[in-house]
Amino acid sequence: MKKLSDSPKTKIKKELKEVKVSPRLTVILIGQNSASKSFIRKKKKMCREIGFKFSLQTFKKETPMEEIIGKIQELNEDPDVHGILPQLPLPRIDENKVFEAIKPEKDVDGLTPENLGHLLRDNPKIIPGTVEAVLEILEHYDVDIESQNITIVNNSNLIGKPLSMALTNRMTTVTICHHKTKNLKKHTENADILITATGKPDLITADMIKEDAVVIDAGYAKEDGKVQGDVKFEEVKEKASKITPNPGGVGPVTVAVTMRNLLKCYRMQQDEN
Amino acid sequence: MKKLSDSPKTKIKKELKEVKVSPRLTVILIGQNSASKSFIRKKKKMCREIGFKFSLQTFKKETPMEEIIGKIQELNEDPDVHGILPQLPLPRIDENKVFEAIKPEKDVDGLTPENLGHLLRDNPKIIPGTVEAVLEILEHYDVDIESQNITIVNNSNLIGKPLSMALTNRMTTVTICHHKTKNLKKHTENADILITATGKPDLITADMIKEDAVVIDAGYAKEDGKVQGDVKFEEVKEKASKITPNPGGVGPVTVAVTMRNLLKCYRMQQDEN
Repeated sequence: MKKLSDSPKTKIKKELKEVKVSPRLTVILIGQNSASKSFIRKKKKMCREIGFKFSLQTFKKETPMEEIIGKIQELNEDPDVHGILPQLPLPRIDENKVFEAIKPEKDVDGLTPENLGHLLRDNPKIIPGTVEAVLEILEHYDVDIESQNITIVNNSNLIGKPLSMALTNRMTTVTICHHKTKNLKKHTENADILITATGKPDLITADMIKEDAVVIDAGYAKEDGKVQGDVKFEEVKEKASKITPNPGGVGPVTVAVTMRNLLKCYRMQQDEN
Repeated sequence: MKKLSDSPKTKIKKELKEVKVSPRLTVILIGQNSASKSFIRKKKKMCREIGFKFSLQTFKKETPMEEIIGKIQELNEDPDVHGILPQLPLPRIDENKVFEAIKPEKDVDGLTPENLGHLLRDNPKIIPGTVEAVLEILEHYDVDIESQNITIVNNSNLIGKPLSMALTNRMTTVTICHHKTKNLKKHTENADILITATGKPDLITADMIKEDAVVIDAGYAKEDGKVQGDVKFEEVKEKASKITPNPGGVGPVTVAVTMRNLLKCYRMQQDEN
């Protein structure tokens, strides 16, 4: 068992600190979700650490859609804003309409239809942060993924769907599971690489994984003030060949990747002008 | 074993014949691929049968990219053209550039990044013909697909990737296989529904499928003048609960769906004006 060191995050942060430019990330928060606020604080902190600019645009939960779309159109045209990031989940709001309003070259999370479609076509421009973080971690672990069986327990727009596309593009054999999957264990125990992001603590137990599997835990739950992933870490780490801790695994790499995406967005906008 | 009747195709054709408008499909053929020519003839024939208009735009294999893109931009602006369909495979040409040039509302095959992204986000506008054909056939077979294990043997932009997204959106458990999959049989014999599109005749044999599985054969190969799918039909039909013939299964439904997509494109363009 090899524990994930900080190095993918550290590597990316180091690269970004050396950059001479200072792009701006504008995060949109609708409502008062406390997990969202915590994720936003982490982005703000890393922006500071690497010398990027950060703004927060807040809306009350009951704000009409038109007002939010109007603000996004304004940010699309603002030359001092390089990345627009609506913090998910969006309460009571049609997520599709929000992402369709964002200019693809300012879509720092890679969640507009255009950017997801480019990823599906194996011609990626901006890749969702968690997806790229998982790819970075697999590379860091030096796993030869071609032809490997990979099971993903998540089928969201944010993680499972784009991750499955990125991984089939690399000629792995991907299975996409979720809460309606019957006999989840049958799919997890066949996986050379297991990636889980359900928000259900202790969902993944040692008996569910293959001996020497690589286990990547991108789950997030907060119970009694304690952040937890999906994996029963103490028992699974004895059986896995590689495993990400959680907290402290996929999350911090994702924040670093978001910063690198912001720089990509900035450069795309410079190329345009 | 229940054989696929013509009815999904017949149903769609009947609907389309009743329509009062006559949208135009423009197919782009680059080079001289004989399978492509055969597929184009089928589209032209169905356009005639239902009273839609058809044009063919041919290019030599060595035509420079700029000339093809220029023609697409012209077709994008032509009010008498409602659907633009580059017949795949494109020889020697960057497929991504071609699809990025097509206006999403004229993208009758649903293969632009925007349309594929809308499908991934479960907010589809135009869905690729083969994908929609498979969904139509499953509906016709009256299969309750939620929570079913579905194995797809194909991971192309045209079939496997968008089909996996459409099927995970319906809360099935999808596995995406391809020629680099190790132990294909392990993935096929676990499938309640098997969808194959490899172009390798007789790849799928009876020992590879689950008793009573639904088998959908979207493969295409031509050997000694004879069109064949991927499935060893005579033996697999004894074990499957439902199976599409090939030829005469997915193909004709796909052509009908393409016509319905053309009508959708036409209506989107009318709504815009």
